[in-house]
Amino acid sequence: RRHAVALIPGDGIGPEVIDASLEVLEKVARLHGFALDMTRFDWSCDRYLATGRMMPEDGIDQLRPHAAILLGAVGWPARVPDAVSLHGLLLPIRKSFDQFANMRPHRLLPGATGPLKSEAFDILCIRENTEGEYSGAGGRIHVGTPAEVAVETSIFTRRGVERILRFGFEQARRRSGRLASVTKSNAQKYSMVFWDEVTEEVAADYPDVTVSRYHIDAIAARMVMAPETLDVVVASNLFGDILTDLGAAIQGGLGFAPSANINPDRSQPSMFEPVHGSAPDIAGRGIANPVATLWSAALMLDHLGEEAAGRSLLAALSAVTAEGRLRTPDQGGRACTTDVARAVADRLS
Amino acid sequence: RRHAVALIPGDGIGPEVIDASLEVLEKVARLHGFALDMTRFDWSCDRYLATGRMMPEDGIDQLRPHAAILLGAVGWPARVPDAVSLHGLLLPIRKSFDQFANMRPHRLLPGATGPLKSEAFDILCIRENTEGEYSGAGGRIHVGTPAEVAVETSIFTRRGVERILRFGFEQARRRSGRLASVTKSNAQKYSMVFWDEVTEEVAADYPDVTVSRYHIDAIAARMVMAPETLDVVVASNLFGDILTDLGAAIQGGLGFAPSANINPDRSQPSMFEPVHGSAPDIAGRGIANPVATLWSAALMLDHLGEEAAGRSLLAALSAVTAEGRLRTPDQGGRACTTDVARAVADRLS
Ligand SMILES: CC(C)[C@H](C(=O)O)[C@@H](O)C(=O)O
Ligand SMILES: CC(C)[C@H](C(=O)O)[C@@H](O)C(=O)O
Repeated sequence: RRHAVALIPGDGIGPEVIDASLEVLEKVARLHGFALDMTRFDWSCDRYLATGRMMPEDGIDQLRPHAAILLGAVGWPARVPDAVSLHGLLLPIRKSFDQFANMRPHRLLPGATGPLKSEAFDILCIRENTEGEYSGAGGRIHVGTPAEVAVETSIFTRRGVERILRFGFEQARRRSGRLASVTKSNAQKYSMVFWDEVTEEVAADYPDVTVSRYHIDAIAARMVMAPETLDVVVASNLFGDILTDLGAAIQGGLGFAPSANINPDRSQPSMFEPVHGSAPDIAGRGIANPVATLWSAALMLDHLGEEAAGRSLLAALSAVTAEGRLRTPDQGGRACTTDVARAVADRLS
Repeated sequence: RRHAVALIPGDGIGPEVIDASLEVLEKVARLHGFALDMTRFDWSCDRYLATGRMMPEDGIDQLRPHAAILLGAVGWPARVPDAVSLHGLLLPIRKSFDQFANMRPHRLLPGATGPLKSEAFDILCIRENTEGEYSGAGGRIHVGTPAEVAVETSIFTRRGVERILRFGFEQARRRSGRLASVTKSNAQKYSMVFWDEVTEEVAADYPDVTVSRYHIDAIAARMVMAPETLDVVVASNLFGDILTDLGAAIQGGLGFAPSANINPDRSQPSMFEPVHGSAPDIAGRGIANPVATLWSAALMLDHLGEEAAGRSLLAALSAVTAEGRLRTPDQGGRACTTDVARAVADRLS
């Protein structure tokens, strides 16, 4: 079996965590009897500064033949505005390949410590990734005057809301059979009441799944006070964005938070990336935490149908975090990126 | 000195926490040599079910002559939809009196325990309370069909954004001189870029205040991972709503979270209320935690210019929580609402 994987290391610590992961990926593939045909795309802020584009004009077409994309991090705000870097590379990929489900698991890896007293939680956040509050619709009038007004419009389509909810219900069915749907329908009476209605309709097709509805403020508090009561959480683009950073926080920080941008239709590539950004402050020092990227790579292997390899990578990763000898500075240790990755490779079996 | 205070006990546990607070308020006033002329308004879901209105048609005019409003809780979703109860009582008060600054202090009272390992934080969240994401503008087309689209429009005015930021900078000046401004300007390029621009302009008038800008996802994570790094936090209606529930969570739950809806122009009443709701599940059992309401009452005394009385109430409250003998069930104890309030009254001096 062969799988074509596009690598986009990107900016800052992105190339460091991607490079460190390659050895692990190659070894796990060898052990499990498949090949990863990896092609590297050096699309980044550096490229933008040299050529005026984050990626070539036919970048999306170049990515299309791959089964998956593994991305490091995009952005370097001090040199290139986020509006240019994110909207020139990360967001067009999510959008062009209609990767509508952004999945982020939140639990503590063995040995990891989080900021909460509670350590027994296992949440899967599913964020709508293509519309809603980040539709980019809006405008400003009387700019720069006392009379200025700015509007930003959230756009929700039935297709968009329905498919993310169905995706969530499918996941809930495979896990505990519990799903939390997130809105703010007491204050946003068009978009969020609509979301509630679609939730109710879709729920009718999944009588085996128990649905709870939460307002975003209440579920944010719950993630901190009683995270063990949540399982699958489905939320809009903005609400999911917030909840998944909160999820990253409770699982020990961004260094431990993986993500998958999924289009379940396998004719288009899905993308896997750590939740963290390019972290310019520590870039170039070889101390970035590779755990989030390695976990994202395990999610990628699952998606490629190599579940045994995915499990084996996650087991090796967990063995290294459980042992606790090798921690990068974000976790209070002194290990470097490649030390951790090499230890994970050594544990693979 | 005399101060006219309107009491709106409201629904569920609202009347319980308000009633319990009266004895404390009367005693602190007596000790500090002023009088509170309290008028009770039994506006509630009960009233709605009996008369078809949450409050009389001239309700706002009846409240206007008061210097402050102390509110318990509004809503009883099983009997009256939130759209009716909140939009029929709570929200019209905030709006009619232009209570644009919703202030919520987040710190652990002595003896209180939160879900975080970190206990040394002292945050003041200031939420815009009149516009933004809760403007109520939007619509739906092709309702109930596969082609349905719902839009919800956030409206930000320069007056609205500027006054909440100025309010925040004034608070920051009185505290640590640090202010965090919250946006999501990398994804919402009209409303949030506007907010960033106004922040920069207002900041120019406060060279003594250090401003940090955070995206909502990042600051939500920070409130959990490093809350001690935050001081005054200024956010839009939605972002402030989320952050203050998160703040309530880290300070030990809604039972401990007070709030003030302020219009600094004292010709209109400001309103003080616990962040918690009417909690129908425990209503009528006399076990609601009165701490949030008593703390809100202390904020009210400050606003009325009775700072010494406010300090004395907060000191008595802190003495009771520090002692830890009387805890309501939400805090793992067996005390009832009136036990706690009476102990606070006893401690007043
Ligand atoms: C960088 C930004 C556009 C991005 C997002 O909001 O999607 C990030 O916050 C994330 O969560 O992946
Ligand atoms: C009940 C609801 C309308 C209210 C709000 O969003 O303002 C509540 O969540 C709050 O935080 O006071």
